[in-house]
Amino acid sequence: MMRDAANLDRAACEAMDLADPLAPLRDLFVLPGGLIYLDGNSLGAMPKDAAARAEDVVRREWGADLIKSWNSAGWFDLPVRLGDKLAPLIGAGAGEVVVCDSTSQNLFKVLSAAVAMRPDRRVLILEGSNFPTNNYIAEGVAAATGGRVSVRLCEKDAIADAIDETTAAVAITHVHYKTGHIHDMAAITARAQAMGALAIWDLCHSAGAMPVDLNGAGADFAVGCTYKYLNGGPGSPAFLFAAKRHQGVSQQPVTGWWGHAAPFAFEPGYRPQGDVRQFLIGTQPIVSMALVETGLDIHRSADLAAIRAKSMALTDLFIQLVEQRCAGHGFSLASPRAAADRGSQVSFAHTDGYPIMRALIAAGVIGDFRAPDTVRFGFAPLYVRYADVWDAVDRLVTIMDDAVWQSPEHQAREAVT
Amino acid sequence: MMRDAANLDRAACEAMDLADPLAPLRDLFVLPGGLIYLDGNSLGAMPKDAAARAEDVVRREWGADLIKSWNSAGWFDLPVRLGDKLAPLIGAGAGEVVVCDSTSQNLFKVLSAAVAMRPDRRVLILEGSNFPTNNYIAEGVAAATGGRVSVRLCEKDAIADAIDETTAAVAITHVHYKTGHIHDMAAITARAQAMGALAIWDLCHSAGAMPVDLNGAGADFAVGCTYKYLNGGPGSPAFLFAAKRHQGVSQQPVTGWWGHAAPFAFEPGYRPQGDVRQFLIGTQPIVSMALVETGLDIHRSADLAAIRAKSMALTDLFIQLVEQRCAGHGFSLASPRAAADRGSQVSFAHTDGYPIMRALIAAGVIGDFRAPDTVRFGFAPLYVRYADVWDAVDRLVTIMDDAVWQSPEHQAREAVT
Repeated sequence: MMRDAANLDRAACEAMDLADPLAPLRDLFVLPGGLIYLDGNSLGAMPKDAAARAEDVVRREWGADLIKSWNSAGWFDLPVRLGDKLAPLIGAGAGEVVVCDSTSQNLFKVLSAAVAMRPDRRVLILEGSNFPTNNYIAEGVAAATGGRVSVRLCEKDAIADAIDETTAAVAITHVHYKTGHIHDMAAITARAQAMGALAIWDLCHSAGAMPVDLNGAGADFAVGCTYKYLNGGPGSPAFLFAAKRHQGVSQQPVTGWWGHAAPFAFEPGYRPQGDVRQFLIGTQPIVSMALVETGLDIHRSADLAAIRAKSMALTDLFIQLVEQRCAGHGFSLASPRAAADRGSQVSFAHTDGYPIMRALIAAGVIGDFRAPDTVRFGFAPLYVRYADVWDAVDRLVTIMDDAVWQSPEHQAREAVT
Repeated sequence: MMRDAANLDRAACEAMDLADPLAPLRDLFVLPGGLIYLDGNSLGAMPKDAAARAEDVVRREWGADLIKSWNSAGWFDLPVRLGDKLAPLIGAGAGEVVVCDSTSQNLFKVLSAAVAMRPDRRVLILEGSNFPTNNYIAEGVAAATGGRVSVRLCEKDAIADAIDETTAAVAITHVHYKTGHIHDMAAITARAQAMGALAIWDLCHSAGAMPVDLNGAGADFAVGCTYKYLNGGPGSPAFLFAAKRHQGVSQQPVTGWWGHAAPFAFEPGYRPQGDVRQFLIGTQPIVSMALVETGLDIHRSADLAAIRAKSMALTDLFIQLVEQRCAGHGFSLASPRAAADRGSQVSFAHTDGYPIMRALIAAGVIGDFRAPDTVRFGFAPLYVRYADVWDAVDRLVTIMDDAVWQSPEHQAREAVT
């Protein structure tokens, strides 16, 4: 969506908002006035329904109904019920997804299952530049094999080439957390399976921001979080996908009672569920869990193709405006230029990225900084407007033209998460 | 506290409530009118402050302040900050406890650490009749050692005798979930350590209900939940204790970024924190996590010796009243008779326990049933009154004398959790 620069002004952006079929959904979210929130890829905005849902689960389900809510409010079934609601957003079927635990824990479970399913294999392949917890978890899983399995870190196109008959599994984040680069899920999965390896996908930066087709690609396992593009709330429980063919066959090592075939029979020995619940461990944080549903309900009402189209248009627009209006200020695009290769975020490298992001945040544009030099902007299609993109760049122009970022208050280092 | 039966009537119980130093704390909890809640050992009652706290964390911290709350609201520090608040309740020091994940997951971490710390040992000892998830988790940990370690299940006094120079660790639930029997933490820990084994304690049914002295006993590791006697909310995150001497020395296998020495440096390799944070894995469910604090704040304002004294008095009273007033109705005490050996709960065995508990619940007395024949009643000292004990038994007397439990509505089986 490269437009004629002469036509690009705020009015043109407002016209795009008027034509946006997703525009009404913005009203379903709480968005503080004056703020341009381009960090929904880190913590998604709050659905307006979340406050009422939180009050109900706390006051009525916990406070008034107490222990009986495990049955009457369906607490015990939440992992599966929410998993079934999430499934269509990621190309999974009913009974293939559970919502539970954290992404790191879920990756530990499926990676452990994968190395057990490939007892003659010795390599796990991950992307070295990816968000590091995945690589740390893989290290832990490899260490637990007592030396049989080791982790090999590759980058981008080298991943597919690295897969061979020694590979137990590849575990790749579908959309790169820092650059937004999209991996070819179908191609990498096919390559892995042709070599007898398993394909595991981390959907943290894709679920909710674009159509994902796990079963279309034949993926073996997947994990991801619900607190970014799915708007589940801070640290809301993650999800885990296990293809039907692996359920009741694979084994994961954290064998807690929620994964038992008869959790209330209190049998002396562990006997895994024959379905996706074998990946559950223990009691879930119900209040945080319940809030996941408000985000999922909004997403299920939206058309994923429209979400993807808007995401590509927003990010194209942002790149075009920054490159035009901040030309000569030292930004270099760190994300793929082709929208088809890019998730719902845009990163620019800049040697002064840290104080620039601080100045932007002070000016009400919330993005984030990733060391050593990346400013990262997320465009959640459900609530970011084209006019927001215009305004964000407008404020960035001021910060650069007036050298606002050079002021001592923005130069001071402190933690930016 | 055996009283003269002639003096025991409701007025006597009311007099005991008037003299109870903990009585004012009841007003800090939401307790539905008409209900006698004797299931705080399964899900603790809701602190009145929890609703406001939930609203604040959802509306302000998430909705309004969004991503900056990771720093400004201290979300990232919650595991350690809440752990430090919990520590005095279990005889731990500052920096020895984190609040995170589920009890099952935390047990997996410390059991895995323990078997790695004792590479020449081959047995994990647990109590077979305990809440089974601990034994299931131990099975998983043992399986991950590839046959080196196996699980041995013992009962009560046989546990200490079973510990020998082949034992890697004992992992015992301090207070038995079903009977309320208290294990001698100091003696079992001493026995384990004399044999070169590690002592791991599960405090699910003791934390908040009685003084616990982990460091006094020299315990190595401990885990427990916050949603029973600590009133953290349904499925609220659990806790993990690691004695200072094991921090930075032991290793746990679920090596996620929250346990990394520099979580925001995004280093390629895992490097564990040198302190208790090495037992963290990934992002925590912040809304559920934040609610833990309201329960802890109440507990920190209460005297643990007074809590224990009242707990013993309440349970003594209940036993005495049931045995006197329901004599001949087939109840047999399934909990230790001596209060010193008993946690804050009382269980009776009865061949018709299931319909009796259903009839009790219908009559507004909430306890629970544990197969095959146990009716279980928890007495949370912060909000259960002596008069509640009287009224509960009064309703039980009616149910037994009038054979209410024999009605078809109570005989029907359905899940009781």
